[in-house]
Amino acid sequence: MTVRFDRIARAQALMREQGMVGIMIMNHDDYRYFFGRDWAQPRAILPFEGPPVLIAFAGEEPAVRAYMGDSAIEVFTHVGQQMAVVTGAFRALLGPAQAAGLGEKPRIGMQMWFETPAFLVDMFRRMNPRFELVASDPVMDALRMVKEPEEVDLLTEAQRIAGLGMDRARDLLKPGATAHEIGTEALYTMMKAGAEGTSTPLHVNIGIDSCMIHGRMSPKPVEEGDLVVIDLTPQVEGYGANLARTFVAGKPDDTQRKLFEGYAEMVEATREMMKPGVRVRDLDARGKEICEAHGLGAYHLEGISHGIGLRFEETPASTIIKQHRNFELKAGMTMAIGHTILAIPGLGGVRNEDLHLVTPDGGQPLSSYPTSIELLNR
Amino acid sequence: MTVRFDRIARAQALMREQGMVGIMIMNHDDYRYFFGRDWAQPRAILPFEGPPVLIAFAGEEPAVRAYMGDSAIEVFTHVGQQMAVVTGAFRALLGPAQAAGLGEKPRIGMQMWFETPAFLVDMFRRMNPRFELVASDPVMDALRMVKEPEEVDLLTEAQRIAGLGMDRARDLLKPGATAHEIGTEALYTMMKAGAEGTSTPLHVNIGIDSCMIHGRMSPKPVEEGDLVVIDLTPQVEGYGANLARTFVAGKPDDTQRKLFEGYAEMVEATREMMKPGVRVRDLDARGKEICEAHGLGAYHLEGISHGIGLRFEETPASTIIKQHRNFELKAGMTMAIGHTILAIPGLGGVRNEDLHLVTPDGGQPLSSYPTSIELLNR
Repeated sequence: MTVRFDRIARAQALMREQGMVGIMIMNHDDYRYFFGRDWAQPRAILPFEGPPVLIAFAGEEPAVRAYMGDSAIEVFTHVGQQMAVVTGAFRALLGPAQAAGLGEKPRIGMQMWFETPAFLVDMFRRMNPRFELVASDPVMDALRMVKEPEEVDLLTEAQRIAGLGMDRARDLLKPGATAHEIGTEALYTMMKAGAEGTSTPLHVNIGIDSCMIHGRMSPKPVEEGDLVVIDLTPQVEGYGANLARTFVAGKPDDTQRKLFEGYAEMVEATREMMKPGVRVRDLDARGKEICEAHGLGAYHLEGISHGIGLRFEETPASTIIKQHRNFELKAGMTMAIGHTILAIPGLGGVRNEDLHLVTPDGGQPLSSYPTSIELLNR
Repeated sequence: MTVRFDRIARAQALMREQGMVGIMIMNHDDYRYFFGRDWAQPRAILPFEGPPVLIAFAGEEPAVRAYMGDSAIEVFTHVGQQMAVVTGAFRALLGPAQAAGLGEKPRIGMQMWFETPAFLVDMFRRMNPRFELVASDPVMDALRMVKEPEEVDLLTEAQRIAGLGMDRARDLLKPGATAHEIGTEALYTMMKAGAEGTSTPLHVNIGIDSCMIHGRMSPKPVEEGDLVVIDLTPQVEGYGANLARTFVAGKPDDTQRKLFEGYAEMVEATREMMKPGVRVRDLDARGKEICEAHGLGAYHLEGISHGIGLRFEETPASTIIKQHRNFELKAGMTMAIGHTILAIPGLGGVRNEDLHLVTPDGGQPLSSYPTSIELLNR
């Protein structure tokens, strides 16, 4: 893990194109992407030219330097005055940015995703009125969407560890088992295997909860015949897996089989379509056709795919940002397929999700965890 | 766990005082506070009058009703159109709010804390231009800051579980042990004991990392003589513990003893001061005096305390919101004491943190986990 000056140089070129004086990094994923490390409170400025600036409290400087003591990094410290330090650093960039033709009121880019709290953005805007604050997506998406081979390797390893967690969950799954017990043991198994933690809260949806779009630990224990959806997201060096499987606690009935079969066909068709140039909305449109052919059209929900990497849901994330439905896939993108739930309200739902790499031949799975209803049911 | 209509009624009275047409709830803590349950994606509207409105996707309605099927709750559902549903619900409240004298452009309250992403707030503002979006703090702080006895019980139970995790961590702490191993085992112990998870990422800061203000899992294993700061935050029904202890991996040297003694005196003095009417800044001022008396004044950092409950750091949180330094303590508030690090840059730091209830006699500890350097060192 070293500081990635190659990525920093590419980001700086894109920043200049976008009229950005710099990117304010306050997120684990961008920080990790550039600096190869993570802190509890990552804070850095990537200026449009020159060395990156790491922000730390005074007492932290020796620790930061011990890990990242490169001459091309500046560490700014001041006790309890982080925001003032940041403002000062940007103010110093104003003149050079104007001279470089970035405009009278240059832009500061910032990630505006789930990890960026609204009150911090407001505070930042108030303290930096000479700049326009914008989303850093045009730079960061361009850099991060297509993965490097080492990134694909880390996602593959995370997905392998998710499989170990799923094995453990499956062993415990029987009437009377609780979501908390299953989640606790799966998490422990994955962390023992090297996961840092998970990128989402534990997701074990039992019975009627299997209809939910999002995951939680169901309060009611497993009952005979329940559908159970388990979605595991262990992280390795920040890269997160996304492995979901649906189990039947007992012998599947005809409706459950029908949901399984519809879902499997939808995933299979999506995988075949995952070639450069295909739009996100095309994947969902095909899924809809398949659900309709199975008589399940009323239950189809858009959102079969999302980008994944150092963030759990990254561009394209069409269920969060509607415009991402128009995104075209590119070779080298990594995507979770099987994101949506196919559920009959009040009865239960199915979701089987895996990671894939977009290639000219279609989606290449990063792992091969089984999905057949026979196996899952044992 | 039932819907807390008493709390809803109190919130509605406060909302009318604040000119709020309603509060948009998108956070686990507020949702749990009113509805006694949690979902992966909590979404509800608390209008200034009438029943609360829960937002769910169509397929989720039976599941939501199964847990909260009260006639005084409305469930709004629409596939994939959550934001439009919310906008419609607020628009329907506009006329009644104006008629009730809440102003021509009534306010919508929203929590603006770490869990509320900036892009969602922007999207919300764009879609609801006839309302003014404001922080819901004036209502929610007034309700939540002083705890009910059952809330104190849950915090106490969480803190007890943190003690079990700390026991496990202590057993593992010896040269060669890694933060990941210690964190994994402590987490598993706490979850087996009933914790839902933790309210913060795992915090095991080893050696030079013990100087850091914030926590992470250090990459370097424990070495003989290292200071190790472990901070555990297990949650029980959403209420989070905050138990931090500093250990010496070996025989403490004079500097380490000095840090321990200074810290212990600072915590003890703060505890005695935790009476109604005392300001947050007074606690820090006293801590500074003590550090100076110990010749550690240069290393004193403000931030000995923060409020705690359904959020890890809640009002008063003076290290995040500077104005909270002027906050006066009230009887019944719960606070973490021992939040700041006392560190000598490059050498190491000490932090011993416990939960306390503010009473007329001073801070009453919610647990009694030992802190003496002899015991910690064994």
